[in-house]
Amino acid sequence: MTDKAAFPQPVSGIVTPRFGDVATFMRLPLFRDPSQVEIGMIGVPWDGGTTNRPGARHGPRQMRDLSTMMRRIHHVTGIAPYELAKCGDLGDASVNPASIDDSLGRIEKFYAKVHAAGVTPLSAGGDHLVTLPIMRGIAKGQAPLGLIHFDAHSDTWDTYFGDYKYTHGTPFRRAVEEGLLDPKRVVQIGIRGSLYNRDDNAWALAQGMRVITIEEYFDLGVEKVIAEARRVVGSGPTYISFDVDGLDPAYAPGTGTPEIGGYTPHEAQRMLRGLRGLNLVGGDVVEVSPPFDMSGNTALVGVTMMWEILCLLAEGIGKRKGRL
Amino acid sequence: MTDKAAFPQPVSGIVTPRFGDVATFMRLPLFRDPSQVEIGMIGVPWDGGTTNRPGARHGPRQMRDLSTMMRRIHHVTGIAPYELAKCGDLGDASVNPASIDDSLGRIEKFYAKVHAAGVTPLSAGGDHLVTLPIMRGIAKGQAPLGLIHFDAHSDTWDTYFGDYKYTHGTPFRRAVEEGLLDPKRVVQIGIRGSLYNRDDNAWALAQGMRVITIEEYFDLGVEKVIAEARRVVGSGPTYISFDVDGLDPAYAPGTGTPEIGGYTPHEAQRMLRGLRGLNLVGGDVVEVSPPFDMSGNTALVGVTMMWEILCLLAEGIGKRKGRL
Amino acid sequence: MTDKAAFPQPVSGIVTPRFGDVATFMRLPLFRDPSQVEIGMIGVPWDGGTTNRPGARHGPRQMRDLSTMMRRIHHVTGIAPYELAKCGDLGDASVNPASIDDSLGRIEKFYAKVHAAGVTPLSAGGDHLVTLPIMRGIAKGQAPLGLIHFDAHSDTWDTYFGDYKYTHGTPFRRAVEEGLLDPKRVVQIGIRGSLYNRDDNAWALAQGMRVITIEEYFDLGVEKVIAEARRVVGSGPTYISFDVDGLDPAYAPGTGTPEIGGYTPHEAQRMLRGLRGLNLVGGDVVEVSPPFDMSGNTALVGVTMMWEILCLLAEGIGKRKGRL
Amino acid sequence: MTDKAAFPQPVSGIVTPRFGDVATFMRLPLFRDPSQVEIGMIGVPWDGGTTNRPGARHGPRQMRDLSTMMRRIHHVTGIAPYELAKCGDLGDASVNPASIDDSLGRIEKFYAKVHAAGVTPLSAGGDHLVTLPIMRGIAKGQAPLGLIHFDAHSDTWDTYFGDYKYTHGTPFRRAVEEGLLDPKRVVQIGIRGSLYNRDDNAWALAQGMRVITIEEYFDLGVEKVIAEARRVVGSGPTYISFDVDGLDPAYAPGTGTPEIGGYTPHEAQRMLRGLRGLNLVGGDVVEVSPPFDMSGNTALVGVTMMWEILCLLAEGIGKRKGRL
Amino acid sequence: MTDKAAFPQPVSGIVTPRFGDVATFMRLPLFRDPSQVEIGMIGVPWDGGTTNRPGARHGPRQMRDLSTMMRRIHHVTGIAPYELAKCGDLGDASVNPASIDDSLGRIEKFYAKVHAAGVTPLSAGGDHLVTLPIMRGIAKGQAPLGLIHFDAHSDTWDTYFGDYKYTHGTPFRRAVEEGLLDPKRVVQIGIRGSLYNRDDNAWALAQGMRVITIEEYFDLGVEKVIAEARRVVGSGPTYISFDVDGLDPAYAPGTGTPEIGGYTPHEAQRMLRGLRGLNLVGGDVVEVSPPFDMSGNTALVGVTMMWEILCLLAEGIGKRKGRL
Amino acid sequence: MTDKAAFPQPVSGIVTPRFGDVATFMRLPLFRDPSQVEIGMIGVPWDGGTTNRPGARHGPRQMRDLSTMMRRIHHVTGIAPYELAKCGDLGDASVNPASIDDSLGRIEKFYAKVHAAGVTPLSAGGDHLVTLPIMRGIAKGQAPLGLIHFDAHSDTWDTYFGDYKYTHGTPFRRAVEEGLLDPKRVVQIGIRGSLYNRDDNAWALAQGMRVITIEEYFDLGVEKVIAEARRVVGSGPTYISFDVDGLDPAYAPGTGTPEIGGYTPHEAQRMLRGLRGLNLVGGDVVEVSPPFDMSGNTALVGVTMMWEILCLLAEGIGKRKGRL
Repeated sequence: MTDKAAFPQPVSGIVTPRFGDVATFMRLPLFRDPSQVEIGMIGVPWDGGTTNRPGARHGPRQMRDLSTMMRRIHHVTGIAPYELAKCGDLGDASVNPASIDDSLGRIEKFYAKVHAAGVTPLSAGGDHLVTLPIMRGIAKGQAPLGLIHFDAHSDTWDTYFGDYKYTHGTPFRRAVEEGLLDPKRVVQIGIRGSLYNRDDNAWALAQGMRVITIEEYFDLGVEKVIAEARRVVGSGPTYISFDVDGLDPAYAPGTGTPEIGGYTPHEAQRMLRGLRGLNLVGGDVVEVSPPFDMSGNTALVGVTMMWEILCLLAEGIGKRKGRL
Repeated sequence: MTDKAAFPQPVSGIVTPRFGDVATFMRLPLFRDPSQVEIGMIGVPWDGGTTNRPGARHGPRQMRDLSTMMRRIHHVTGIAPYELAKCGDLGDASVNPASIDDSLGRIEKFYAKVHAAGVTPLSAGGDHLVTLPIMRGIAKGQAPLGLIHFDAHSDTWDTYFGDYKYTHGTPFRRAVEEGLLDPKRVVQIGIRGSLYNRDDNAWALAQGMRVITIEEYFDLGVEKVIAEARRVVGSGPTYISFDVDGLDPAYAPGTGTPEIGGYTPHEAQRMLRGLRGLNLVGGDVVEVSPPFDMSGNTALVGVTMMWEILCLLAEGIGKRKGRL
Repeated sequence: MTDKAAFPQPVSGIVTPRFGDVATFMRLPLFRDPSQVEIGMIGVPWDGGTTNRPGARHGPRQMRDLSTMMRRIHHVTGIAPYELAKCGDLGDASVNPASIDDSLGRIEKFYAKVHAAGVTPLSAGGDHLVTLPIMRGIAKGQAPLGLIHFDAHSDTWDTYFGDYKYTHGTPFRRAVEEGLLDPKRVVQIGIRGSLYNRDDNAWALAQGMRVITIEEYFDLGVEKVIAEARRVVGSGPTYISFDVDGLDPAYAPGTGTPEIGGYTPHEAQRMLRGLRGLNLVGGDVVEVSPPFDMSGNTALVGVTMMWEILCLLAEGIGKRKGRL
Repeated sequence: MTDKAAFPQPVSGIVTPRFGDVATFMRLPLFRDPSQVEIGMIGVPWDGGTTNRPGARHGPRQMRDLSTMMRRIHHVTGIAPYELAKCGDLGDASVNPASIDDSLGRIEKFYAKVHAAGVTPLSAGGDHLVTLPIMRGIAKGQAPLGLIHFDAHSDTWDTYFGDYKYTHGTPFRRAVEEGLLDPKRVVQIGIRGSLYNRDDNAWALAQGMRVITIEEYFDLGVEKVIAEARRVVGSGPTYISFDVDGLDPAYAPGTGTPEIGGYTPHEAQRMLRGLRGLNLVGGDVVEVSPPFDMSGNTALVGVTMMWEILCLLAEGIGKRKGRL
Repeated sequence: MTDKAAFPQPVSGIVTPRFGDVATFMRLPLFRDPSQVEIGMIGVPWDGGTTNRPGARHGPRQMRDLSTMMRRIHHVTGIAPYELAKCGDLGDASVNPASIDDSLGRIEKFYAKVHAAGVTPLSAGGDHLVTLPIMRGIAKGQAPLGLIHFDAHSDTWDTYFGDYKYTHGTPFRRAVEEGLLDPKRVVQIGIRGSLYNRDDNAWALAQGMRVITIEEYFDLGVEKVIAEARRVVGSGPTYISFDVDGLDPAYAPGTGTPEIGGYTPHEAQRMLRGLRGLNLVGGDVVEVSPPFDMSGNTALVGVTMMWEILCLLAEGIGKRKGRL
Repeated sequence: MTDKAAFPQPVSGIVTPRFGDVATFMRLPLFRDPSQVEIGMIGVPWDGGTTNRPGARHGPRQMRDLSTMMRRIHHVTGIAPYELAKCGDLGDASVNPASIDDSLGRIEKFYAKVHAAGVTPLSAGGDHLVTLPIMRGIAKGQAPLGLIHFDAHSDTWDTYFGDYKYTHGTPFRRAVEEGLLDPKRVVQIGIRGSLYNRDDNAWALAQGMRVITIEEYFDLGVEKVIAEARRVVGSGPTYISFDVDGLDPAYAPGTGTPEIGGYTPHEAQRMLRGLRGLNLVGGDVVEVSPPFDMSGNTALVGVTMMWEILCLLAEGIGKRKGRL
């Protein structure tokens, strides 16, 4: 492909070692104009929807820092994302730590602009509520979306503290209500943890969401879970949302609502690699909370999941653009 | 059941968020009079039996803090402990950091009072020696007990440093000698680690204890280990003692004598869930040592195991009281 | 005094060592009915006004835990607060992590009830915005108050992110606007740090607040600063608000907006001890953020400042009640 | 001044909160072409000269991250650096972790280019050896320089491990030997710590360097130390090198060779502020080692010292350019 | 065996508890004369070959400290190494943090002396480059060696930063080139992580090395991997090199180049135990980096792997010496 | 002096860098026979007297590790201890974590042997109770001793938990009762913290001890405190006991009973340097608790205080032996 030469590339480790220089996602160039890229990596430094332990607002920076550990080519699939698509860091969405409503508006607006530029977004949260305004922003022309949702929690509660409708426990209920998600094309993987009420997950099930609890996950095994996820979302436009608390907290201690007993990063990698060829329109990794893991280990896990999703997105674009 | 309305309930998250207010076990009310409850959650803030790294004396407070993450209903079994039994926090047993003997006496006395009030105790250690005075305190009318013992170590050494008989390496030998435990109804799961002497576990085996090393554990798999544990303890009164060092230290680094290569929390949860229907008279989670894990991650694992045991105990009481 | 015998006392260390049992402020009993006490220690587990690093919502619990280090009698002044006043832990004010407005209302209501019961409140934040609803709650019959304000920041900004008026950078501007504070009876000690705008502190100065920057503080010395503070607040009703970021961050790293170059804890203790005999109506210690100092060292500093303020408040009550 | 409107400015906190977006020094724009700025902030992510605890190679990134805490105007001097000079982040100098010699060459070359563009460099190390190639790079037309050197160590050893001449203990000896420094215009402040040999500092003294030990520092007091430093360097071109281990390790634990008993950050700030009006040609802050302080507290101290030096440099440029 | 009585033994826990006294490997005596032992445990405190996060130079001390957790007899195989071979701590090899070349020479010389004394070395790194001079030192009379290599990385890159041939990414390429290793008798287990270039592992494969990626590892299972490793190395002299980053970083976070998704310590133990009876001539555990895990948990994992290898080596010597 | 050539010397940094090799105190040789040295550095890894936060049992190892930062010659006094006296590491005293009484006996016996060999001991605790058996061990021929005692606490309580006489709060009361200390020759520096009872320090004062509270300390200043300490102990045999909690916890967070508001390390160094020429018979540094400061910063402070005391002791021996 003649245009590949001009694709943005990560800073060369020959000039500055990987731990050096300004930290951008994957050491890619920073663009303020989304039209320069096809895949835009975006931070959403906001945790105003967090009802328990805060800190995910600091996630994008730490994930950018640790993304330096990523190299250029996927060691299993051989996908070379920077040869298949124009990728770049688009900086952070504008947010307002003093207002949930204002932040929801700012984030939606940022993503609407990105979407209008034809960019596929790959985001780093932020708490899980950020997925809602992201979906609002990219809905045009493709909603309702399917969703592959890795998480310990269903995040389909209705309200909190009475009638507060916007927290990191409610985004997918809102998204269904708003027509952003097609509940029948939603699969949730890893759900667990004690319940507030017997019917915590009832609404999700009633809408037709496919909830794979961690117990079912272990009983089925990775391959069957992949097959089930593919079956659920089918060939329609699909979004991947990866909450790091789906993993066991030993692998991702830096998160706000840890639930013991999750899957391993290797298993998560296998699941993500099993999603090749789907019709993917974006993805995010959320709930990395640096104050609860200053070592950066959680961010490393999180950003490696971003790398896996990036390869999926780039392969899709490469195919569509005839670069493969 | 008409009496359920008056059962103690955790503080509502609608009034104060889960991270708020005074930290009690499971956010339950604190009772100084044991006769108010059927299941009493008790701390034993003592590590005077520790021969290596100390700190488990700080375990109960950190476990109370992290117990805030627990909700009300078990997500797999559906058990709702606070509907099935009167549960409460009974505070900490009295202990004396300057004397092993005095502490053993104080702890036994505390539990004898609890036992006399008809309460089933669920305790948070403290080092593993605390299980001995607990057993002494609850022996009346039900000893010798059976024991399901999760641990990396057999804790059946004889003496230490010559003729010192009371350390966290000796409680179960003492318990057998004192007639508190029926060694033929003891099963130990996860035993491993290099040995001082070739016959470190010989005494336990000679008494008829069933020692499942971690190697045998992995070879058998969780289901067969559950079956074996149920076979060993049978229908007699049985106690569960969960030392967090039975888990791999990646999941529970905050402990005094870590041994690499243990089971995962999910596996431990599965094993505990496999113990439904046994004749359980109490349980404990021990050896959480906060100074070696200030993040609270180990305490979270520990207190989730308390939650699993709580559900088992509550179901048993609920059945006996005809509330199910 | 005949009534002293019935004053609430901390749990005896002879029964349970200081690190044991449920953690309440100063190991005092927990009362849900404020009318039982004269000085009520209260947590406000909320950081919704934080524009930078969050986590102060976890402050009250960690401060309760570390308050266990406090004993009964002040080693310099000889004040024995539990002999001079009925003191107790009143638990945490109700808050809502998902709404600033709702939280402001809940907190105000909680304190109004405490105030109506004739209780002098001593609070543990939470971020500095919590001082605003506290002042609203206790305003009746005594506002406008004087204020002795220890802090690196003036916290008199107007708005944030456009027109957002309620953040931890604005409480004292709002309090003056609402008539809760008399700006001419406000003294701020330790102000420093680079500025957004040249006139960041202009509003405060224009209102007549006395701003002692850290540079002036070091030039004057502790004794003259005490004299100046006493002069400013005079004999009217006065509140003490201690933001731990007034201290150098080496002493209080667990805070959201550290500014290097502050005073030492010993100096702060001297300043607080210099406030004996003022007409004090309450106090707080805010901005302890446990996720940024899991060791508890910051909380220990914070709670020792609470102890110093407690002794001041108790002496005042003791005098008024004729117990001295 | 008409040209000020076009000066680079930090990202506005109204668009993205200070903890958000890609971390550059002081949130300034990143320039790859040095001719765009007058003051260039540069990282040197290299610790190949470290003979004890490594990690300073990670310093620039963590200092960029914490520089987010800096605002726009100096709260004591009123200096507004971004109005007085064109400031920007120039990224990191190229280095080679596998070769001291190659790194010395790469760094010198980078700075020579910066110097040729007329830029005043303000750098973040890296270990203290990086100051040598920086000085080589900026020598042209202005060497030998004067030096104000804050440090616990004289860094004028000769060789290490036999005949190895390039370590973080030797840069200023080499610089004198090479004619980069005028030893009679060098002042070192805070020197302390046990000695290898009785004459460890003899060479420095013999060259005419002014060595102010920490003991003399405390005896003289800040004002006299400032006067002495100004006297020593006079009106000639002068460089400021600030090793964070000159501070007491309580304030800067994240460093490779801590020596207890140093000055405080406030004292260091006062000393730096005392250097206004000197003929300053550059500065650096070195030996921040993130692996030894993942909290970022040391980096915050370090980057605040960069802010102080930045204000000095900008004022000088502002004066020379007639912008004041 | 009559000579066993005089074998060096670990300090008795009856005299000083295991956490006490000077920390040597396994609490064995320290010998400066290698001729006193048959198995010499050696530290190589050097990380000059590290291209990313440094700190492995501090590995040997922390591993000695944690080795205190090891006891005397293997709990699965029953091997009692101190009865089968004369074991001791030989201190650290001489190194030079200021020179790669000098260090390579010093290390080789140290090991050549050890080898000449007939000692089997078991080493604690240091970064992985140290394996190269170790192999040079022990080559005489037995090279080319076979290698069982546990690692996330192949460490067979050619050069770095142009033409720098000696980094922790290149030792095994150099070793093959120098005839120290027989590539056809090399097996690598656990290789993974994104690639710089599509052919990163091509050279290794072209030489005939057997590369078992982590994906193949999980597909084969532990038993088949053991069989394959045994097949590859056959009966010739073989070295074991265990890089802790082969493990999942949850188990070994204290390392320089973590790659998520590795094996567990239990699996590694099983693999090592599967190597009994091979013709083993030495081993090492490398890349433990204490600054990235001050808790010592990574060092505990590392030193337990040393214990496993020690038992293998001692059994081999015991057999050859007719002590079994 | 002709015998100096044979004095034990620290391991040369030319052979192995300071962070390398087995960690002994000050990198000195380890001797099991005390008669080889004149000054013996000894660890007492025991915290059985700790009534609050444990962990000081791990102090000696961490202090040995950090002692590597010490060099050979005092930078202020010029004292070269290894030229003035035969110094060595004597390992750790035998202790028993399972028994206070047995440990007191073991420690006394160890020191009696050291004392009988004519050795001046310099010890690293352990908790403060260890000073009691040390004093018992060295009493022969020189008791009652004078004492210069740096601490936040008087450590002269009578009993704990009823009638328990041996805790880290009681050693100096016991020592006076046993005739080991002459209370009129005891000075305590830095006493502070809230009190259990109004007369907590009454006993000490009644015996004639000179108690310098931290408030008096700051009022007097270092020079007058030195003069007062010298006046109190006079020319009789005197022991120095340095509890790191006398320092402000910002400098020594790794300790069991922190009290905010202490002196700085520089001030402590000045005080110790002010004790030259006294008749010193030994010293200790106690209460370094590594689990509460894994960074080693507290141990570095502690071991630097050991270095200061070592220089005092060596100078005294040098004078007596005519080596000066």
